[in-house]
Amino acid sequence: MKPERTKDPADLLVFNASKVLTLAGPDRPRSGEEMQDLGAIPGGAVAMRGGRILETGASAQLRDHYADAKRLDAAGGLVMPGFVDCHTHLVYAGSRENELAQRLAGASYLDILAAGGGIHSTVHATRAASYEELTQLALKRMNQMLQHGTTTVEIKSGYGLDLETEKKILEVAAAAGRRHPLDVVPTFLGAHAVPRGTNRARYVNWLIKEALPALRGLSEFCDVFCEKEAFTAKETGRILRAAKRHGYGLKVHAGQFSDLGAAGVAAGLGAVSAEHLENVSEAQLKQMRNSGTVAVLLPGVPFFLLSERYADARRMIRLGVPVALGTDFNPGSCPSFSMQMGVALACLKMMMTVEEAITASTINAAWAIRRADWLGSLEPGKQGDLIVLDVQDISSLPCHFGTNLVRSVVKAGQIVLPPRH
Amino acid sequence: MKPERTKDPADLLVFNASKVLTLAGPDRPRSGEEMQDLGAIPGGAVAMRGGRILETGASAQLRDHYADAKRLDAAGGLVMPGFVDCHTHLVYAGSRENELAQRLAGASYLDILAAGGGIHSTVHATRAASYEELTQLALKRMNQMLQHGTTTVEIKSGYGLDLETEKKILEVAAAAGRRHPLDVVPTFLGAHAVPRGTNRARYVNWLIKEALPALRGLSEFCDVFCEKEAFTAKETGRILRAAKRHGYGLKVHAGQFSDLGAAGVAAGLGAVSAEHLENVSEAQLKQMRNSGTVAVLLPGVPFFLLSERYADARRMIRLGVPVALGTDFNPGSCPSFSMQMGVALACLKMMMTVEEAITASTINAAWAIRRADWLGSLEPGKQGDLIVLDVQDISSLPCHFGTNLVRSVVKAGQIVLPPRH
Repeated sequence: MKPERTKDPADLLVFNASKVLTLAGPDRPRSGEEMQDLGAIPGGAVAMRGGRILETGASAQLRDHYADAKRLDAAGGLVMPGFVDCHTHLVYAGSRENELAQRLAGASYLDILAAGGGIHSTVHATRAASYEELTQLALKRMNQMLQHGTTTVEIKSGYGLDLETEKKILEVAAAAGRRHPLDVVPTFLGAHAVPRGTNRARYVNWLIKEALPALRGLSEFCDVFCEKEAFTAKETGRILRAAKRHGYGLKVHAGQFSDLGAAGVAAGLGAVSAEHLENVSEAQLKQMRNSGTVAVLLPGVPFFLLSERYADARRMIRLGVPVALGTDFNPGSCPSFSMQMGVALACLKMMMTVEEAITASTINAAWAIRRADWLGSLEPGKQGDLIVLDVQDISSLPCHFGTNLVRSVVKAGQIVLPPRH
Repeated sequence: MKPERTKDPADLLVFNASKVLTLAGPDRPRSGEEMQDLGAIPGGAVAMRGGRILETGASAQLRDHYADAKRLDAAGGLVMPGFVDCHTHLVYAGSRENELAQRLAGASYLDILAAGGGIHSTVHATRAASYEELTQLALKRMNQMLQHGTTTVEIKSGYGLDLETEKKILEVAAAAGRRHPLDVVPTFLGAHAVPRGTNRARYVNWLIKEALPALRGLSEFCDVFCEKEAFTAKETGRILRAAKRHGYGLKVHAGQFSDLGAAGVAAGLGAVSAEHLENVSEAQLKQMRNSGTVAVLLPGVPFFLLSERYADARRMIRLGVPVALGTDFNPGSCPSFSMQMGVALACLKMMMTVEEAITASTINAAWAIRRADWLGSLEPGKQGDLIVLDVQDISSLPCHFGTNLVRSVVKAGQIVLPPRH
């Protein structure tokens, strides 16, 4: 058929999958019905070379074409792109696990924040931690993420709130990405909270005049937490406009506890994503659809905050807004980094179909961090990032909630889990 | 100090824990404030010989006393008894993962059951499966459970509803227990549903006159599903009384969807446990307290059934009813077997403290299957069943919901995870 293929040897062939979910499709964030199409190849295989995907197809065929490649037998498991966790705050020191007991006793997340706990407590610990301490903590968390199937992670700063520590966090994120198989995408979130001992107007000015220009080389995106205890929609607009002038891609934390209008502001500025969105008007969702702004939903947060207020994913999908999923992994409002659990919560709490949840946690998540040309689907030329799950069918993912179904992880064409192979 | 110990060599020493949670305490199911006491030994160690626990204590001390023992370095992780999953339906064939899509489309669990799906669909597949097929399925699930920290599992029959298949399920459960490190405790649940093609009165008579005497040697407990689409409280009482005469320990599925009074009936007969209990009157809870009947709560079920109606654990603990946790692992209403997830749901959905949830999933779960003399705590003479978790403190358990924190598993004094050591 195509005998020339034998001259083009593969480094690695993953074969014998129950299905390979390629997520191949149109070159845009998937919305509406498109989110149902996983591009499944029954009995499929994936050939990789030089870290990239050469070809996907039927196992029988690819086994012949790439007879000399190293082999990973998927043994009837499900093969899909590695999870892309497009919203985390992974670089931090200290622990806030005691806050759960406070919340079980009735305090809200915003109560704890307003009392100087929450983000402020993590800021305190992160300022005190050394570069190497933070790096070791980050690497340990990235190992655990990898074991649970995540192959790319966005990391927001925002636990420094001064130039030195914000810089340290962004540098640690980048260094951890170089030292670990996971790809890291850093985001500057200086506008995470107003630090103790300053006032909000002075802090916003400092962000715009000093921090944004100084950190430009360390972060591809700028994000703002628009919320009652954080920044107003007007401040959000000022910061994001300045960030845009400095060449940052734009992101926003919008509508987590209250709808201050940030999703609309961000969409109006062409933001890549608006995130959380538990509270958001239909008008803003339509703005997001028109600007191609991805809705990044984080169901682990209301789950952990003892809330039953989840983002209305069904309405977003009906309106044609592209939906992505992230964990929001952070020490306070979601200390879980499992994208598998995110998929389960998306189905059980936001009534997403499993297909939609998989699209949202792979290719659409890659769009939310501008990596869709390179990650998030198994298509020739893209990076060879895939996982083998110990299930035959996608319907098992929400059913096995709370368990780790990952059997193998391939990152950039290399088997990274199990560790020795 | 006690030099004679050097003449008493240990086979295995687990040391260097952040804490060893011994769960040592009074010789009865723990209730009320007792559930808060985990018997923690900071910097602890556990010495085992011949499959049993010799001693627990400080690492420094035990390391000297048992200098010749094989060592497992807990490396600052948390050591606790292996989880005891005291309510599962692990032996079955077929899959019902499609039912989630039906439920997302609006059908209830009882709708699906009444339409001949649900349990009936599993009965069909389980009758058709061979002894060896069922055994292989069971062993695979037990491997996954072990990887998630469960070291003992109760397994209910009830997917046969005829003598041949009920017998097959109980025999498979016993055989799987012999072939696998996990301990298995089999329970006869012929009264799981009225099989298609018979009537309820005839089936109840058959259970009492034929099944109970025939299966006595294969099952230690008899259980009844008292519910609208299953058996009435009166039928439940008849079946349990007959079971008691035949020497079975008694269990009951009570109040899962509606309170038919089964918890009170079972408590009146001295049942070991009443299970589910989302709907149960205070009077019945007081009967349970007085009879020492353990409340086995299964929060994975409402979570997976898209319900927010969880058992009122706080009321039970306040009333002095001993509370245990199980997964209810089964193909329909809870296909997850993670006790770690059960602990997280107990905290986040039933407002149990982490301490209560750990007591409930170890020593109290052992009481619920009459194994507390042998399992569920780390006390001298008991079986050496423990897990090492990759966290320093118990507060991390609910925080890391959906991830697998298990680093090592020791069963009967042997390291069974990681597999080769």
